[in-house]
Amino acid sequence: MRLSVAIFKKKNFIQAMGFVNQVALLAEKANHHPDIDIRWNKVKLTLSTHSAGGVTENDIELAKAIEKL
Amino acid sequence: MRLSVAIFKKKNFIQAMGFVNQVALLAEKANHHPDIDIRWNKVKLTLSTHSAGGVTENDIELAKAIEKL
Repeated sequence: MRLSVAIFKKKNFIQAMGFVNQVALLAEKANHHPDIDIRWNKVKLTLSTHSAGGVTENDIELAKAIEKL
Repeated sequence: MRLSVAIFKKKNFIQAMGFVNQVALLAEKANHHPDIDIRWNKVKLTLSTHSAGGVTENDIELAKAIEKL
């Protein structure tokens, strides 16, 4: 299993929740759901791929979409 | 520091995110923000109180409000 972890620091909890909801919509659309850990203004996303032995097209597309937020 | 942990299992990610947003609104209103860990349909909330050496009125009110969701 491959893991990709990214931590995003926002101004406050409101901004963090806005970001989380944007990620959630992209994740649901891609049917590929990262683990999401919220610590007030910090959001940790962990994308894991259980199949295909590594990075898939799904991972890359979702990561690119999140980077554009 | 006192910790209170609760895990909520929902039908799916959409239901889990709906719950997370309800909790987020209550948390922001109470100015008391739990750690929130989302694992697809499961949501773990960790409420911690750094001050007052234990449970405060804030904890009790927020926990009651979350239980009513």
